Amino acid sequence: MSSTIFIQTPFQSKSLNKSLNTHFVPSFKLPVSLSFKPRTAAFSKRVHIRAGLIEPDGGKLVDLHVSEPERELKKREAASLPKVKLTPIDVQWVHVLSEGWASPLTGFMRESEFLQTLHFNSLRLDDGSFVNMSVPIVLAIDDLQKASIGESDRVALLDSDDKLIAILTDIEIYKHPKEERIARTWGTTAPGLPYVEETITNAGNWLIGGDLEVIAPIKYNDGLDRFRLSPVELRKEFERRNADAVFAFQLRNPVHNGHALLMTDTRRRLLEMGYKNPILLLHPLGGYTKADDVPLSWRMKQHEKVLEDGVLDPETTVVSIFPSPMHYAGPTEVQWHAKARINAGANFYIVGRDPAGMGHPVDKRDLYDADHGKKVLSMAPGLERLNILPFRVAAYDKTQGKMAFFDPSRAQDFLFISGTKVSFLTI
Amino acid sequence: MSSTIFIQTPFQSKSLNKSLNTHFVPSFKLPVSLSFKPRTAAFSKRVHIRAGLIEPDGGKLVDLHVSEPERELKKREAASLPKVKLTPIDVQWVHVLSEGWASPLTGFMRESEFLQTLHFNSLRLDDGSFVNMSVPIVLAIDDLQKASIGESDRVALLDSDDKLIAILTDIEIYKHPKEERIARTWGTTAPGLPYVEETITNAGNWLIGGDLEVIAPIKYNDGLDRFRLSPVELRKEFERRNADAVFAFQLRNPVHNGHALLMTDTRRRLLEMGYKNPILLLHPLGGYTKADDVPLSWRMKQHEKVLEDGVLDPETTVVSIFPSPMHYAGPTEVQWHAKARINAGANFYIVGRDPAGMGHPVDKRDLYDADHGKKVLSMAPGLERLNILPFRVAAYDKTQGKMAFFDPSRAQDFLFISGTKVSFLTI
Repeated sequence: MSSTIFIQTPFQSKSLNKSLNTHFVPSFKLPVSLSFKPRTAAFSKRVHIRAGLIEPDGGKLVDLHVSEPERELKKREAASLPKVKLTPIDVQWVHVLSEGWASPLTGFMRESEFLQTLHFNSLRLDDGSFVNMSVPIVLAIDDLQKASIGESDRVALLDSDDKLIAILTDIEIYKHPKEERIARTWGTTAPGLPYVEETITNAGNWLIGGDLEVIAPIKYNDGLDRFRLSPVELRKEFERRNADAVFAFQLRNPVHNGHALLMTDTRRRLLEMGYKNPILLLHPLGGYTKADDVPLSWRMKQHEKVLEDGVLDPETTVVSIFPSPMHYAGPTEVQWHAKARINAGANFYIVGRDPAGMGHPVDKRDLYDADHGKKVLSMAPGLERLNILPFRVAAYDKTQGKMAFFDPSRAQDFLFISGTKVSFLTI
Repeated sequence: MSSTIFIQTPFQSKSLNKSLNTHFVPSFKLPVSLSFKPRTAAFSKRVHIRAGLIEPDGGKLVDLHVSEPERELKKREAASLPKVKLTPIDVQWVHVLSEGWASPLTGFMRESEFLQTLHFNSLRLDDGSFVNMSVPIVLAIDDLQKASIGESDRVALLDSDDKLIAILTDIEIYKHPKEERIARTWGTTAPGLPYVEETITNAGNWLIGGDLEVIAPIKYNDGLDRFRLSPVELRKEFERRNADAVFAFQLRNPVHNGHALLMTDTRRRLLEMGYKNPILLLHPLGGYTKADDVPLSWRMKQHEKVLEDGVLDPETTVVSIFPSPMHYAGPTEVQWHAKARINAGANFYIVGRDPAGMGHPVDKRDLYDADHGKKVLSMAPGLERLNILPFRVAAYDKTQGKMAFFDPSRAQDFLFISGTKVSFLTI
């Protein structure tokens, strides 16, 4: 794989290919009429150009790694602690937590954070302000593991090869209300939700929360670790490039020309608004995805190709991997995707139709209303500082004989260039 | 029914009967250790004694009744409008909305409020602050009704006798995502939830929101209307009595001596804290309840008896009916119960075990963790101004041979005096 698109190696500057067809055109209109008017001002009025990157949630990025001199001490300590075995997805969450994507969380949720997440999609800080937190980041254990922990106030977390990953301290064990967790996170309890079947259905009846002491940075040794930049590393890179705006684009599918045009057009608009150097964070999700999604390694090759072809400008684009697992929880999950990007330094977030959505696992329909994701994102507590960029979709309008904004009320008049409507629009 | 207990007639002063056994003892300790410490200060430190009653949500009580001179005009206008038929429970919600219990809501929720309620249990106001709003207050219509409304921006709302109840203006019709509404409100989609079966399962696939113009105050003509005081009337009564603290006790079951002792003990503690005249709002829920709950008329007779017997002091007690229907949605619904009482002037709210809870409709267990209600209440956005008073339960401890705090880890050691544990503890 060429290294030109990744920030740990020098970039080749390429000019934009101007001959692309427009598949997507961004719309900056806020999509909803809100009675209580959460942030309904026009896009151009909402943006406050400021020096420096957006502050992380809680004011400070969390770093949960133990320092190198402490490592041996921690390993010796862990040897005498009760052990909890982590699944590969648990390890991905340790990764997410360890680098501060979920700042100000300092470990797996205790019950207080779990309940606030389920009921309010946000956490109240000591100063009374809220940060967004929409998906539970929790660690399940079963009755036997709970019994083996006994009265210990800390446990050692091991991966599936029995390698020590972290110590969880000041632990709290509480009931795992699976049905309620699923209902409140997904808005359904229908069987067949991928993340639920993978991580919850057969999980233990207890959750264990606490503060993490992560022994060493999480690596996957899959050839892609160098692309997994932490929020700290991303912020350094944005600062090195003198970014005065960072716009994030989350995706879990290959990039289309339409996506690419959207991204370059967003940059153009940000320049028009007065920003001098907007940088795109093209940020594919790298954790667990369902079996029929395109694997990460293929997607990374494809993203590379897009940059090689000059569709995106490497000078103003940072491609990196977001280590989170995927919930497929629609409007609830898109808040997590946006919040994590604040912590990585992004102050603009591009959101498409039906973000983090999928088909209903039982009924023949989409699980979520395709517009709820961007609406919920525009209302979410703790995301006030983030500028949400919803986009409308362009397709070939057979009645006009040209590209036009897709009008769902006459869907039959439109041709989507690439694949099905659903796969085309899912980001 | 004697009128001595209700505020619209003079009160007889009776001294407390001091010979009661203690069944309940209030505990003012906050029940949870919260990592992000939302309001974990000790009870005595949290209370700020201030002049005047607590402000209603949004700063001002909503009153959605049309003025008397306008009534005839509105009736004539309604005659030419599309009609929507209300169920008796819909009319109860019109009642709730019309008197400002749900302030600052001005009518049935539009989609923006519906989504904020489902996802955040709160609504953001124009000034960026939040008010609590945890249960959707929505009006469902079916495809035929939607078609009959056409392009009209207002509809007339009729009761089951075709009597005009209200006009709904500036309407918005949006999809009724039943499964998602149920899952996010109840934390389960199991069949058998009473409010769901009564109002959602067979309801239409659309919701219609808008501002209410209520033609005349809602009356039920069941002999109890005089006990249905509005928030404005309650506030006037509290002011007339020079209340400097109002503590609300919601219940949907008969009052026990234990409840009563709790309430009088709460008053004693408030006096100790420096309040000069704490008034109890004993506030039975008067809207829809499930078939096996004790009917309202019986409960009112029983409440009256408790005051007649001198168990509660009529001089410091206001008994009134809260017109809301019951969701049985546990930690989600208890927030609504508390929020509505802020609007009625209460700044203290007593919460017991498993508030608004019930048995799981399918599994043999409680639907909600009995402690989640008070925990969620203590964390809820928009309820910061309300002092939450959780109480612990006392029962006869066979090992000690006396009344003691119930310890669930050795439940077999305790005898509950009255009925089953569950019915005894449900308020």
